Amino acid sequence: MNTVEIIRKKREGDELTSEEIQFLIRGYAKGEIPDYQMSAWTMAVYFQGMTPRETADLTMEMVRSGDQVDLSPIRGVKVDKHSTGGVGDTTTLVLAPLVAAAGVPVAKLSGRGLGHTGGTIDKLESFPGFDTSLTTEAFIRQVNDLGVAVMGQTADLTPADKQLYALRDVTASVESIPLIASSIMSKKIAAGADGIVLDVKTGSGAFMKEEEQAVQLAQAMVEIGTRVGRRTMAVISDMNQPLGRAVGNALEVKEAIDTLRGQGPPDLTELCLVLGAQMVTLAGGATDEEGARELLREKMADGTALDYLRRFVEAQGGDASVLDDPGQLPAAEVKIEVTAPAAGVVDALDAEAIGLCAMQLGAGRATKDASIDHGVGIVLHKKVGDRVQQGELLAELHAADRQQAEKVEKRLLQAISLGDQPVESPPLIRALVTESGIQKR
Amino acid sequence: MNTVEIIRKKREGDELTSEEIQFLIRGYAKGEIPDYQMSAWTMAVYFQGMTPRETADLTMEMVRSGDQVDLSPIRGVKVDKHSTGGVGDTTTLVLAPLVAAAGVPVAKLSGRGLGHTGGTIDKLESFPGFDTSLTTEAFIRQVNDLGVAVMGQTADLTPADKQLYALRDVTASVESIPLIASSIMSKKIAAGADGIVLDVKTGSGAFMKEEEQAVQLAQAMVEIGTRVGRRTMAVISDMNQPLGRAVGNALEVKEAIDTLRGQGPPDLTELCLVLGAQMVTLAGGATDEEGARELLREKMADGTALDYLRRFVEAQGGDASVLDDPGQLPAAEVKIEVTAPAAGVVDALDAEAIGLCAMQLGAGRATKDASIDHGVGIVLHKKVGDRVQQGELLAELHAADRQQAEKVEKRLLQAISLGDQPVESPPLIRALVTESGIQKR
Repeated sequence: MNTVEIIRKKREGDELTSEEIQFLIRGYAKGEIPDYQMSAWTMAVYFQGMTPRETADLTMEMVRSGDQVDLSPIRGVKVDKHSTGGVGDTTTLVLAPLVAAAGVPVAKLSGRGLGHTGGTIDKLESFPGFDTSLTTEAFIRQVNDLGVAVMGQTADLTPADKQLYALRDVTASVESIPLIASSIMSKKIAAGADGIVLDVKTGSGAFMKEEEQAVQLAQAMVEIGTRVGRRTMAVISDMNQPLGRAVGNALEVKEAIDTLRGQGPPDLTELCLVLGAQMVTLAGGATDEEGARELLREKMADGTALDYLRRFVEAQGGDASVLDDPGQLPAAEVKIEVTAPAAGVVDALDAEAIGLCAMQLGAGRATKDASIDHGVGIVLHKKVGDRVQQGELLAELHAADRQQAEKVEKRLLQAISLGDQPVESPPLIRALVTESGIQKR
Repeated sequence: MNTVEIIRKKREGDELTSEEIQFLIRGYAKGEIPDYQMSAWTMAVYFQGMTPRETADLTMEMVRSGDQVDLSPIRGVKVDKHSTGGVGDTTTLVLAPLVAAAGVPVAKLSGRGLGHTGGTIDKLESFPGFDTSLTTEAFIRQVNDLGVAVMGQTADLTPADKQLYALRDVTASVESIPLIASSIMSKKIAAGADGIVLDVKTGSGAFMKEEEQAVQLAQAMVEIGTRVGRRTMAVISDMNQPLGRAVGNALEVKEAIDTLRGQGPPDLTELCLVLGAQMVTLAGGATDEEGARELLREKMADGTALDYLRRFVEAQGGDASVLDDPGQLPAAEVKIEVTAPAAGVVDALDAEAIGLCAMQLGAGRATKDASIDHGVGIVLHKKVGDRVQQGELLAELHAADRQQAEKVEKRLLQAISLGDQPVESPPLIRALVTESGIQKR
């Protein structure tokens, strides 16, 4: 097989065979195909796209390039959830114990955050003593015993995807739906889940700004999952403003605890119920979405969900007493109240800018090796559509020192737009995408 | 400036600034921009094209990447000719002395051939003793004294173009009109000509199979030349069959001598008159094409053109006695007559296949360092549209040994298609492309 001919074939818009995709990805992973041919190929894919069959083949070649986690010793249908990345997205912290409480095993590999979107492991480490460096044996035992475990990613999953993503990043070919879809799905498939619920964010704070693009990405991922025998569905959800009220690690943990108690922000609660109901349904823990939702609501109301969080935190060495006294969570030295400079209606909250404010406070990493401050962050007191009076509280800044807090305050005020006309809150759930089609909400 | 942003801008179809193109080409030539970014950029150019301004900027950056030949010590307007490459294309051998005889200086840098298209230097070296390794001083002196000189390319012209072309070749981004146009034009501009006449071939034996593409390439090159202050025009000519009758070095020299005497094949003679008239007109040696053509015909008829060839060959150390006795040219050991297996009409001559037959006989190089045999080649006795009887002579093979001749004979017969319906000979001159537009012929 000839690499130049494969590039040319894709450039002309023709479909590559499975053997050609295998030749390309294996050759690239072995260093036999150079970066300059691979980047020409990814740019050709940017323009010509890939068929669902090609996309699934690419995904599976990336899966085969590294280790694959075997979750078969865990009883039941293992369902994973993946979010395309948002600001203040506390859903995993809520969903892990909540879905486990509904009887569906949650065996999750997670990563640390980079940039303005937080990582689940960083958030969990806000519990003093919490440890994610489990062995695979301990991880599987805990899921079988308790129903839930979260492990830091140690295995060498999808190295070809990492290599290809790093190349796309420096050659302006990130924004290709089949390449994004195969990158995400390869990691989920290698992590061993039987079923995958995708939360594809859309809006100004998301990677996919337009809903149409988000739907296309969701369709591409659902198609990959279906083709390779993993039950997969996607929820298209709003990221025009941060989800919930808290942005920052310990602040989001506190918000997750509130939500598991049934006292969380309405948008975060609703998204957790929608995603959780899909996970439970996919795993066969309920016959339909409505039944699954009812089950999850019960587990929140009767304290079972919170109890699962408590046992989960304890099992991984964390101090669960913070569930009863959130004052023991890491907290910032300085709190500043950000108030409305004039009366009006919040007509936009720039999620990305707010995420960057939290990062500047120390809640996120600018580089891979940076350390983070678990206590700092932002709590929003108004969301899009809310009316405010002059001087009324818009948000709280939790910072390590006053000087930085004041700097970030100015940026935060620019991220909160006040108008004089009433506006509607953007709808949270836009659509569900399954094998059989798109259901608009 | 940021390379990823420049790739993205081109990917989105936006026009790059002159500074961005400069940054890209200089950075690439210095090794600061890696191959993998450059190949992503050329693939984006393949899909999005370049504006005439961008194409001219790219051309001039490639010119500036290396040496530039200064022809200003040569009196008069120096006009160069470039062909996009064909089979049996003997025009340069005819045009160099012919145009010089009409009083227009010809200062030509030439290369050796690669693949199935021959190189002017290889053809000239069929004259025993002919030497193209002149110093620049000797080259300029000869043009001023004699009106014509051909020098092998020694200066380091357009290294950035060589580097970029080699990359495009292994990343399937050769076939882009602005990239082809800037590559050709950069070499011509760096070689110092004031005016450039382009012979853009079209048809089955040419790089541009479709006439429409050939016209687009011609327009792109004429636009570049005009923008950077070089008088430029293009002739679109047929390459559905080999030009003239001879394919092979010494065989083409003999054909050039015949043509300068006014006894050459009609198609070669006509193309030389058209290209030569454009060269003379561009240089101001005649007021219009008709006058230039008349002048060239005179120089053929009165022996001046052949006399210029004689003096040119002698000046460069070659044995010009072969002009009077072509039997002294290098000749092949074996001649085979290829005859018609049945009566019919020649309805196609596969130029590329015939070029490959000549290469197989030893007339061309498969690799850069291969040696060639000046004596071997093919002489066609029938061209498209000619009627033949069974057993009538179609072509002569000139080969080093009988075994190879017989092998090639089979391939050659496959390249000559005989039908039973009358066909028209394909028109030779398709169009002229100038700054002011396209004139169909």
